[in-house]
Amino acid sequence: MTDTIRPTRTTASRYGGRPTMKDVAARAGVGLKTVSRVVNGEEGVSPDTGRRVQEAITALGFRRNDSARVLRKGRTASVGLVLEDLADPFYAPLSRAVEEVARLHGALLINGSSTEDPAREQELVLALCARRVDGLVIVPAGDDHRYLAPEIAAGVATVFVDRAPGLIESDVVLTDGFAGAREGTAHLIAHGHRRIGFVGDQPHIQTASERLRGYRAAMADAGLPVHEPWITLGPTDPARVTAETWRLLAGPEPVTALFTGNNRVTVTAVRVLAASGRRVALVAFDDFELADLLSPAVTVVAQAPAQLGRTAAELLFRRLEGTEQATQRLTLPTRLLPRGSGELPPQD
Amino acid sequence: MTDTIRPTRTTASRYGGRPTMKDVAARAGVGLKTVSRVVNGEEGVSPDTGRRVQEAITALGFRRNDSARVLRKGRTASVGLVLEDLADPFYAPLSRAVEEVARLHGALLINGSSTEDPAREQELVLALCARRVDGLVIVPAGDDHRYLAPEIAAGVATVFVDRAPGLIESDVVLTDGFAGAREGTAHLIAHGHRRIGFVGDQPHIQTASERLRGYRAAMADAGLPVHEPWITLGPTDPARVTAETWRLLAGPEPVTALFTGNNRVTVTAVRVLAASGRRVALVAFDDFELADLLSPAVTVVAQAPAQLGRTAAELLFRRLEGTEQATQRLTLPTRLLPRGSGELPPQD
Repeated sequence: MTDTIRPTRTTASRYGGRPTMKDVAARAGVGLKTVSRVVNGEEGVSPDTGRRVQEAITALGFRRNDSARVLRKGRTASVGLVLEDLADPFYAPLSRAVEEVARLHGALLINGSSTEDPAREQELVLALCARRVDGLVIVPAGDDHRYLAPEIAAGVATVFVDRAPGLIESDVVLTDGFAGAREGTAHLIAHGHRRIGFVGDQPHIQTASERLRGYRAAMADAGLPVHEPWITLGPTDPARVTAETWRLLAGPEPVTALFTGNNRVTVTAVRVLAASGRRVALVAFDDFELADLLSPAVTVVAQAPAQLGRTAAELLFRRLEGTEQATQRLTLPTRLLPRGSGELPPQD
Repeated sequence: MTDTIRPTRTTASRYGGRPTMKDVAARAGVGLKTVSRVVNGEEGVSPDTGRRVQEAITALGFRRNDSARVLRKGRTASVGLVLEDLADPFYAPLSRAVEEVARLHGALLINGSSTEDPAREQELVLALCARRVDGLVIVPAGDDHRYLAPEIAAGVATVFVDRAPGLIESDVVLTDGFAGAREGTAHLIAHGHRRIGFVGDQPHIQTASERLRGYRAAMADAGLPVHEPWITLGPTDPARVTAETWRLLAGPEPVTALFTGNNRVTVTAVRVLAASGRRVALVAFDDFELADLLSPAVTVVAQAPAQLGRTAAELLFRRLEGTEQATQRLTLPTRLLPRGSGELPPQD
């Protein structure tokens, strides 16, 4: 098992003043220009020397990105937001909230999407660091973020949002998906359902597995068995979700209710339910546009994506302004919004 | 009236080889390091000298961003996409399409949103240029893009999409909003409507004014008068659109049909129509998620946002690969999708 890396954070007072590039150069036994090259992501440094400089940076807690640097360079401050898919409407209010906070601080927001690919996440994050963003808000795709330790140590403030980082300590803002899914499933049970299907995202995604855990907990709380065929996890593309939803509605013991694990799954499941003509109850994780105008209106467990984004961005700017407090882990609650689909009784 | 700036494009053959930084330095009468500073957006160059170097760059057609440079620096190529609002679902498939094309070319996509503010657009575009993107796809907020001429001349490939640039020549990919709105309005007229309301975006936005022009043309084609109170233009926030839609439905001569000018307007107008209990016909510009599941399903004039993004990105990469053909202006057609709301007869 690999250890979690704790990027060194040092206060100015501990060293009687922030460490300088000169300090780093002295400790690494290299010239000032070499340190500058490493810090600024320029070429012409051997991997060995680069590693030596990074170690000195980490040991001294040298921070590249103080606001003096930003002013010195005469550049607009900027923060990067890396998320899973810019086209997923869940991220729209999140990204807009991060942008608003950035603007209040006079900073530009630069976005990129990892498309749920850890290698691409890393590539994008490092590309943004090389392009000198002052801070990063990341919805992680991967589960190993040790690659970020040198950047954080070098002063790139980092906050994770929606999902926790792996093998690294960092500020993180999450939604309590476990409690939300448990409450939503319990709501269906309270309306008389016993055979409840769960249509979710890929199980390796933290948020997906947390929601599944919430579903199982609610069933266990009520003393109800879960038949494994009621659970379907995988990519959220319409073809898979369509086929799986039809499967759950068929057979000798069809489900009488569905819990859908995110907004992408829900919009497809809603289509299948409409086409089936069956009155199957539905509680959906994530609110979505026009949910209240469908027939029946869709009962959802709503996250607060704007609040997620705002909270993460505010944490980020506190870091950029020099807060040295211990890393924080904040969890936001969900809200059950009964609208009709989740209150349908079982139809056997 | 100001002239349109035509950034100099030069072919390698015209000079028997690409102009180099040395050529620029010689012409501007400055040192090589000064040219490098200007080209790389570094500090330490006086405005006067900067201007002199930019003039030499433009005159010689020096291009900073050949692929040799990208390889030399050992950096991943990247392109920037600047659009109006990342949170607007219209841009989701557009941005995803640009990203897919970028990935096929081994490049990263970096996004930013101008929030319909020309100053912010410029700030963001120049910030991306300073961070060395190789090319830009821009949905412009402003109508004066002369600020981009030095960047284009210095080799940053640029393609505008959805709206044309102002006072500069560049590749551009548009939707034929005039023809689309004319066809959608004619569809309502063909179903017997005479009093048709138009709920649109702010009139200074090109796409908004083109669609209004299409509405007027269809009414004129049919010999129908347009009463100016039937037209409402302005911000697309729900409060304004809600109030204006109610106004159109009230009074002694209420409209019997609505043409909505974009997806943001539509989702609000749909709520008002549902709340009113009236059978008012609706044709909406832009398709939107779940339009087909509403009751009645919403008839739309669909754009092809993914095709817009793909076409723009492909043009961009052709430029990055060195195409020197004249700038192109491509216009994509819309598609009328009758689903129910646009085929309701007038109810007087």
